Amino acid sequence: MIYMPAALAIIGLIYMWVKRSWVMKQDAGDGKMKEISDHIYEGALAFLKAEYKLLTLFVIGASVALAAIAYFVPTTHYLIIVAFIFGAFFSALAGNMGMKIATQTNVRTTQAARTSLPKALNVSFGGGTVMGLGVAGLAVLGLTGFFILFFNYFMGGEWTNTEQMTIVLETLAGFSLGAESIALFARVGGGIYTKAADVGADLVGKVEAGIPEDDPRNPATIADNVGDNVGDVAGMGADLFGSYVATVLAAMVLGNYIIKDMGGDITSEGFGGIGPILLPMAIAGAGIIISIIGTLLVRIKSNDAKEAEVQKALNIGNWVSIILVAVASYFLVTWMLPANSMTMGFFVGGEEGFEMKTISSLNVFYASLVGIIVGGVISAVTEYYTGLGKKPVMSIVQNSSTGAATNIIAGLSTGMISTFYSILLFAVAIWASYAFAGFYGVALAASAMMATTAMQLAIDAFGPIADNAGGIAEMSEQEPIVRERTDILDSVGNTTAATGKGFAIASAALTSLALFAAYVTFTGIDGINIFKAPVLAMLFVGGMVPVVFSALAMSSVGKAAMQMVREVRRQFKEIPGIMEGTGKPEYDKCVAISTEAALKEMLLPGVITIGFPIVIAFLPRIFGYENMLIAEMLGGYMAGVTVSGVLWAIFQNNAGGAWDNAKKSFEAGVMINGEMTYKGSDAHKAAVTGDTVGDPFKDTSGPSMNILIKLTCLIGLVIAPILGGHTEGDIPNMDETVMVSEGADSKLISKEVKMEKKTEDDFVTAYVVVTRSDNGEEVTETFEFEGAELEVRSKVDEIK
Amino acid sequence: MIYMPAALAIIGLIYMWVKRSWVMKQDAGDGKMKEISDHIYEGALAFLKAEYKLLTLFVIGASVALAAIAYFVPTTHYLIIVAFIFGAFFSALAGNMGMKIATQTNVRTTQAARTSLPKALNVSFGGGTVMGLGVAGLAVLGLTGFFILFFNYFMGGEWTNTEQMTIVLETLAGFSLGAESIALFARVGGGIYTKAADVGADLVGKVEAGIPEDDPRNPATIADNVGDNVGDVAGMGADLFGSYVATVLAAMVLGNYIIKDMGGDITSEGFGGIGPILLPMAIAGAGIIISIIGTLLVRIKSNDAKEAEVQKALNIGNWVSIILVAVASYFLVTWMLPANSMTMGFFVGGEEGFEMKTISSLNVFYASLVGIIVGGVISAVTEYYTGLGKKPVMSIVQNSSTGAATNIIAGLSTGMISTFYSILLFAVAIWASYAFAGFYGVALAASAMMATTAMQLAIDAFGPIADNAGGIAEMSEQEPIVRERTDILDSVGNTTAATGKGFAIASAALTSLALFAAYVTFTGIDGINIFKAPVLAMLFVGGMVPVVFSALAMSSVGKAAMQMVREVRRQFKEIPGIMEGTGKPEYDKCVAISTEAALKEMLLPGVITIGFPIVIAFLPRIFGYENMLIAEMLGGYMAGVTVSGVLWAIFQNNAGGAWDNAKKSFEAGVMINGEMTYKGSDAHKAAVTGDTVGDPFKDTSGPSMNILIKLTCLIGLVIAPILGGHTEGDIPNMDETVMVSEGADSKLISKEVKMEKKTEDDFVTAYVVVTRSDNGEEVTETFEFEGAELEVRSKVDEIK
Repeated sequence: MIYMPAALAIIGLIYMWVKRSWVMKQDAGDGKMKEISDHIYEGALAFLKAEYKLLTLFVIGASVALAAIAYFVPTTHYLIIVAFIFGAFFSALAGNMGMKIATQTNVRTTQAARTSLPKALNVSFGGGTVMGLGVAGLAVLGLTGFFILFFNYFMGGEWTNTEQMTIVLETLAGFSLGAESIALFARVGGGIYTKAADVGADLVGKVEAGIPEDDPRNPATIADNVGDNVGDVAGMGADLFGSYVATVLAAMVLGNYIIKDMGGDITSEGFGGIGPILLPMAIAGAGIIISIIGTLLVRIKSNDAKEAEVQKALNIGNWVSIILVAVASYFLVTWMLPANSMTMGFFVGGEEGFEMKTISSLNVFYASLVGIIVGGVISAVTEYYTGLGKKPVMSIVQNSSTGAATNIIAGLSTGMISTFYSILLFAVAIWASYAFAGFYGVALAASAMMATTAMQLAIDAFGPIADNAGGIAEMSEQEPIVRERTDILDSVGNTTAATGKGFAIASAALTSLALFAAYVTFTGIDGINIFKAPVLAMLFVGGMVPVVFSALAMSSVGKAAMQMVREVRRQFKEIPGIMEGTGKPEYDKCVAISTEAALKEMLLPGVITIGFPIVIAFLPRIFGYENMLIAEMLGGYMAGVTVSGVLWAIFQNNAGGAWDNAKKSFEAGVMINGEMTYKGSDAHKAAVTGDTVGDPFKDTSGPSMNILIKLTCLIGLVIAPILGGHTEGDIPNMDETVMVSEGADSKLISKEVKMEKKTEDDFVTAYVVVTRSDNGEEVTETFEFEGAELEVRSKVDEIK
Repeated sequence: MIYMPAALAIIGLIYMWVKRSWVMKQDAGDGKMKEISDHIYEGALAFLKAEYKLLTLFVIGASVALAAIAYFVPTTHYLIIVAFIFGAFFSALAGNMGMKIATQTNVRTTQAARTSLPKALNVSFGGGTVMGLGVAGLAVLGLTGFFILFFNYFMGGEWTNTEQMTIVLETLAGFSLGAESIALFARVGGGIYTKAADVGADLVGKVEAGIPEDDPRNPATIADNVGDNVGDVAGMGADLFGSYVATVLAAMVLGNYIIKDMGGDITSEGFGGIGPILLPMAIAGAGIIISIIGTLLVRIKSNDAKEAEVQKALNIGNWVSIILVAVASYFLVTWMLPANSMTMGFFVGGEEGFEMKTISSLNVFYASLVGIIVGGVISAVTEYYTGLGKKPVMSIVQNSSTGAATNIIAGLSTGMISTFYSILLFAVAIWASYAFAGFYGVALAASAMMATTAMQLAIDAFGPIADNAGGIAEMSEQEPIVRERTDILDSVGNTTAATGKGFAIASAALTSLALFAAYVTFTGIDGINIFKAPVLAMLFVGGMVPVVFSALAMSSVGKAAMQMVREVRRQFKEIPGIMEGTGKPEYDKCVAISTEAALKEMLLPGVITIGFPIVIAFLPRIFGYENMLIAEMLGGYMAGVTVSGVLWAIFQNNAGGAWDNAKKSFEAGVMINGEMTYKGSDAHKAAVTGDTVGDPFKDTSGPSMNILIKLTCLIGLVIAPILGGHTEGDIPNMDETVMVSEGADSKLISKEVKMEKKTEDDFVTAYVVVTRSDNGEEVTETFEFEGAELEVRSKVDEIK
């Protein structure tokens, strides 16, 4: 059973490879098309190469830090470094594959659009499918692979006790941390890249020189098209890769906690006694196969299809896969979990504070249903607030008639007010999934929601591919029908981009909650009390960080765009014949500016994200604060970041999306004060201003919030064992004091002592793992002692 | 000693009256000036009248709700209704007095400006002083007066026990709730009023008709000038009145808690055993006298003085009063508190959770110093981010050159990034003041900061008076020198307005923290654990409310401004000769629109503010949640509102202030890309767009956050006793079971039984207060019993 999810992931990857070969076999078009496509491909590779250089340095630095943690914390093993490096590598690999397939599918989509719309959809969605399955497959394969490895390494492939499983999972957290670190680079750097190129290209090209979008004479146009891939494909992919891994990991940690609550051993329940830990992986594995089924349903027949039919095809695939996940969850949950004998600790009111409750496996299924439903509803709410023709967008359109200021106020208001239903939904989701099955329920709600990640990503990645295909059609001067067909796909892609962002926030928020819960169990604190002043202070600081992070990301875009503007202006002035199409623009210079700016500007936000939790974990020690209090402070910080980050993510994404579609509304014409108003009107100009403000909101700072909140909680999780009270100095060398009697038929093979010091003076818990050969058979026993230090020592001595 | 603060408040009010007579004796100018001033005065009165009508309804409704609370909760007495009504009345009275003096000082300032600048400053600051002392005097008088009343009524003017003092303070909370409710109407309604009038007047007058600001031909100009008074004078006054009262109250509640921690009786320490409770009132009283001294120092000599000198005069008054408060705090704290014997419960790490520590009175002084310093530094940070010529504003100016979009992005970034230092300061303030003296220290930090309220308000109110004076000079066509002089005062007033907003946020934030701490002591919960899912869910909901509240306030301004625009357009079209100055605009119609819109649009935000805490307190009961858990949930909500509210207040105020000054920078000309750029340039137009977006930010939604967070915490405080586990049904009628032996020289006068049920089953605490005449002397005794219900009943029976 433990190999099942990995096997399913491999099936997903094989299908991905088959699909990839099919896409690559498609006609890649002729001369000019190929040339442009090659430019985009090379630009994307240039970004990846520069990024990898920086990443390598980062991974080395982080590995050293992890080595220090592993050295000082007995429950953290050096293997965390290996897991971290592979997490980073897998995430980068997924991004690399995604970028490559996206930049190669775009031109094939243009070529296919010369034939028919169904063909173009097939090709572009095929590219998206490759991306989706690549990300999901690598995520599940990596996580389950390392779990199997560590499970065998630390526990010999058999259940021993929850403490050893904690070591397995803490080491596994390295994989998740590696993945999320790459996501920081990809999402934040990608967000800055794409908007710097976009704004720069528009400001000089469209506004100053008066040439259309995607015009090959514009030196920044290749950077702009590369940006779509860097931001929307690689950034989104890394984001969801990180969420996927973190969610499943958090659910596994909480699954281990359930086993602890049930007495520490449920081997009698089957599944090697690790059913609750395997379940989230099984759901993830099933999700991959289900996503394949979903992608197969996405197809249209008519060559004259419009947006609605394409959208419908995508919706069918999406909803079928969501429903199948619900069905699969039901069978997996009732199969793998003890039906009515699970006990969980619940926080309740009153003085006792904590209560053990017995819950049925059906409860866990209900919790996962909560996640699936909330994921769907949040996407719907996002669509309402940002959708074309919906009330909020129409109100922004109306407010454009009185100028840019009223347009801006209306857009900001829309983003702000959109937090109402989204946050209430989250609150209900937390409440309900916890009520059903405790924090394990919350984590499984997130896991079930994330199970369709491959499908979601396929839908998401198809948008920028179609967008690029349109750009290539424009630049290579194809027949208008080609552009019309890619425009239909692009338009649908814009809608899926908005709902995809809703899905990404929802997943990030639930993931963070699950990690937050896992954090508390790792540190061993029994709650986070914000009535303690230092904890409250950290709640404030945590609330502030997303706001400052957003501001930094936004002004980064401004700075990078200004550099781009200067470069484009220079080329227009210095390259002879560039405006007549005889001189060749230096695309690579613009690509280089975006690349360098993205990676440089990303550093400060990155330092804040990683630095704050570390400072909070270590600075108070100087003031003599106890570890348990510091753990609560860090928990308060995490909660502050999560609450504020989710709010600002929703606010910025929805405001940006609404502004974008308010501007687009003018393309078909809108009725303002009884008059049809079109592109070029003053109201349209006001709407363009709003859209420009919204661009960094929805594509840079907004989506970055996802990474910020997840990475903050993950760093907390990795630091957690340090705060849990384990430090090297506290472990007396007890090797010599542990005596295991060796007799004729009983021989000592190995003994290992772990001792952790609790916060109270001289109160210790010691674990002694003894392996011996008994009548030729290998037997492993773990002895646990709790009490005053001297007492424990003497007890440990007694082991015979 | 108990009468001292009230006496100081009365001295302050007498001084106010003297100052008021002096101001009223100043020359009120001639025909046209007087006519315009009368219009403004009447407009202000019209708003007050409409507001009072709505207020009366609200006060009646709230009184009924409070009656219900008093009925069901034994520790809440019916007198809370009286306190509430007087709190509302005093706050309204202070606002009324402030508005009247401000609208009468304005024309006198114009008249004085015809003579000299020092005279004009004297008059306008004199008006501000009247306002400041009126608000502070009434606040201290009302609070201390009711405390004396309740102390005598419930405790006979002598220390009995902390439980009875809790009843006194819970009843006193009604006064604070009344005051803060009025602040909701004044601040939010006022904010909508002033911006609706301002935007409406500008859009049609300046932009469409091309007539200057404050032109008497503009029908909305009177409403605009009334708005300055409604928003900046009455709104700010009510805001600080509420903060002042709430802060002192919270400190008193926590002072009572200290006495409890010290064993419940410290009469041996002098001050009737209520030193820690009296101290915050004493500091407030001293602050009034100190503020009078401060105002006396504000004067300039030279008639040719510029902004810098006027600013310096204000700064001297301000800083002297702040330093004097620090000195006074030192003497009061060391005099009134036990020097080294105070014990306080502190939350610490580890399993015990709670620890009693002994602290010295000097620690409390240090805590109050923290408040004073943070208040000053936050004002300085605010000035940096919004000040003319400072880096952030200059950066917005530079970004205006590339259009409105980049101006908006730069302004938003500035507001967002400005949260960094402000929030870190708060975090340090919470941390440090708590480390010095627990939550009593946090409350005293707030009290010490608020002690200079009278001085702060004098500085604040002087700004809009000068602004109005300039308007009157313009409308009555005075010599240019008059306008020049009022412009100097107005310009200084703009700076003080920004720092005043910083002070108001800081005070609101610290007040909320103090109330938050008081809430926890009232409910009897031992912390707020955000690891409990329902509490975490409420933290999310609380974080969302300020965002939605801000959106509602912003869009209210938009709606009301549109109404105003239509009315002004109508008058321009329909009134013959209006543009030639021969037709008379119907000022009152515009005033009526602003008034009605303000009061109508205020309702929904008001309902959200008041409704959410009530729903959270009662809805979960339907699901069978325990009171203690509900109390934690409400606490989580309060924390969410406070953290998010403070963030959004800083963000909106500073962004708005920075946009405003970026626009103003163009008046003197700014250097952009090596070229001097002035009013009328494209960059200036972009800056005007930013300022229009910033207007509702800094004058409506931003300042409303203060009220939202304070009122939320106050409502929590009033609901707290209900959640503390007291409900009518739990109180057995024990009247007949209490037996007090009556003998020859001992006669029963009255006995009162209070019994509260704790959360554990059948575990009760009963208080029996018996008053009897003993040898002709009246003796009051309180008996307290804790234990199982039956046991307590039998004990109570034993009272002989």
